[in-house]
Amino acid sequence: MILVVAINPALDVTHHVDSVDWSGVNRPAAVRVSPGGKGLNVARVLHALGSDVLLVGLAGGMTGNAVRSALSAANVPAAFAETTGETRRTFAVVDTGRGETAIFNEPGPLVSTAEFAGLTALYAEALKRSSAVVLSGSLPPGLPASSYADLIVMATDARVPVLLDTSGEALKAGVPARPAIVKPNLAELCDAVDSELRPAAGRTGRVAAAAAAAAGLRDRGADAVVVTLGADGMLAMTADGSWLATTTPVSGNPTGAGDAVAAALARGLALGSPWPDRLAEAAALGAAAVSAPVAGEIRTADYNRALADVQVTSWEQP
Amino acid sequence: MILVVAINPALDVTHHVDSVDWSGVNRPAAVRVSPGGKGLNVARVLHALGSDVLLVGLAGGMTGNAVRSALSAANVPAAFAETTGETRRTFAVVDTGRGETAIFNEPGPLVSTAEFAGLTALYAEALKRSSAVVLSGSLPPGLPASSYADLIVMATDARVPVLLDTSGEALKAGVPARPAIVKPNLAELCDAVDSELRPAAGRTGRVAAAAAAAAGLRDRGADAVVVTLGADGMLAMTADGSWLATTTPVSGNPTGAGDAVAAALARGLALGSPWPDRLAEAAALGAAAVSAPVAGEIRTADYNRALADVQVTSWEQP
Repeated sequence: MILVVAINPALDVTHHVDSVDWSGVNRPAAVRVSPGGKGLNVARVLHALGSDVLLVGLAGGMTGNAVRSALSAANVPAAFAETTGETRRTFAVVDTGRGETAIFNEPGPLVSTAEFAGLTALYAEALKRSSAVVLSGSLPPGLPASSYADLIVMATDARVPVLLDTSGEALKAGVPARPAIVKPNLAELCDAVDSELRPAAGRTGRVAAAAAAAAGLRDRGADAVVVTLGADGMLAMTADGSWLATTTPVSGNPTGAGDAVAAALARGLALGSPWPDRLAEAAALGAAAVSAPVAGEIRTADYNRALADVQVTSWEQP
Repeated sequence: MILVVAINPALDVTHHVDSVDWSGVNRPAAVRVSPGGKGLNVARVLHALGSDVLLVGLAGGMTGNAVRSALSAANVPAAFAETTGETRRTFAVVDTGRGETAIFNEPGPLVSTAEFAGLTALYAEALKRSSAVVLSGSLPPGLPASSYADLIVMATDARVPVLLDTSGEALKAGVPARPAIVKPNLAELCDAVDSELRPAAGRTGRVAAAAAAAAGLRDRGADAVVVTLGADGMLAMTADGSWLATTTPVSGNPTGAGDAVAAALARGLALGSPWPDRLAEAAALGAAAVSAPVAGEIRTADYNRALADVQVTSWEQP
């Protein structure tokens, strides 16, 4: 079973508006509400892929109830510890006329130590049945930056490998706890190693600069680092070697593509599959997520097409 | 008792953002959630003024439950008929850097004939104990434009006078049912009588043009018309005469000022107080609402100051 932690889930509300008046009254043509947050998206992708998955998380108030019941309706197994504060919303305004999207992410409820203890109790119990853990997304207010590090130590004690996908202080504090994989994008990676990336020209130069920063994150404790590089592909630096995965760029909606990549990497981690296979699946699933007409809903045909197209090559520092 | 109908209430979510990135990710510095919609605002102002008030409305889903429990926490007496569809949200993004606000109003749930019948049953029962009715706000999808007209006829049969505060087709269809007062702003008034206003210069010219349009609405069935004219004041055209109320313009947030005006007019209607008194109270309450630091929360000191400042003069077509 893959155990996914949703410590700060969200209710995602999306308004489609033809041409937004940013200083007036708008009447959205379409309104969409779905449970969200990175951990939740990872769990849904794993469930759609047929993986045995359990989501544990924190939820509170009416938005928390909405998240729970939507997951239940989608048959995604989940257990939540209750928070007094209300689960956050995210609000996206898609300007269909201009082709732009504005996103407003609420920070989430103030979580108490006791509420976090409620989550860790669920987590400790679930670890006994888990072959991999995904810790994904931001921490809610009130929790120390070391909270993911605490969960990594618990998983390590239970001999369950962890994929950590977060940013900022939570990433910095989590890496020394020695997660099996961290999966930053380039901006998150540079922030985590306090590096200003100065790449040489061209893809080779950019990948080399990312590799140098990723090596810094391995030095700090990450067993493997997978950096998502947009059109430049995906670089994995591991104890077994380094690889670069590339696909033909697809157009579409990149929202949720990172969560699809995390889901594929977690599957590979649980199965212990070879790194080139993990990377090929992760790159293909990410590309299929970008192609999906609705964020988070991946089509098998897109995935199979992308998988046939992925190139994974061994990579060495030039 | 004043009976207020909230046929399409809302859960108002407000995000305060320092300088909005309309094509990127924003993290609101403050998030505020409150029950809203025009009818609900009118009921809250009446309750705050110490009036005996009952709200009847339609509510559904988790946002409907949030609206109900917030009203209950505020001790505003209310009864709701259930809808299968979910009560709508409104989203306001306040750009604190630029001083602009963007508002996104969801249309509301699709309401069935049976659900509307549930509301009218509550309404018919409450009419027996009512001295005035307020019908305020938009109609949700699925209901015919004549829905307010149906409620006006029921009130008239029960000898209870009605204040109608809506716009568009709902206003056009409601006026022939002979409400005691309609309270449009200038844009709503012109739309209702299919008139393009061509005012002569100056306040006198603008008020005269509004008066001509208001006379058109009285011809179509409204017993009295009160037009809110912003800085030009508030014009009442009634069977007893016509009056113009003016105040010293105040700066602040105009959201909810129209609902405060409607609440004051409904009080005057229930008490049968003379028109100049009703108008003075309405103009003062509107000004106090603009001054309030939080929309919908009126301070007694502001109201008393505004009441001392209001000028009500008899008005004749120049």
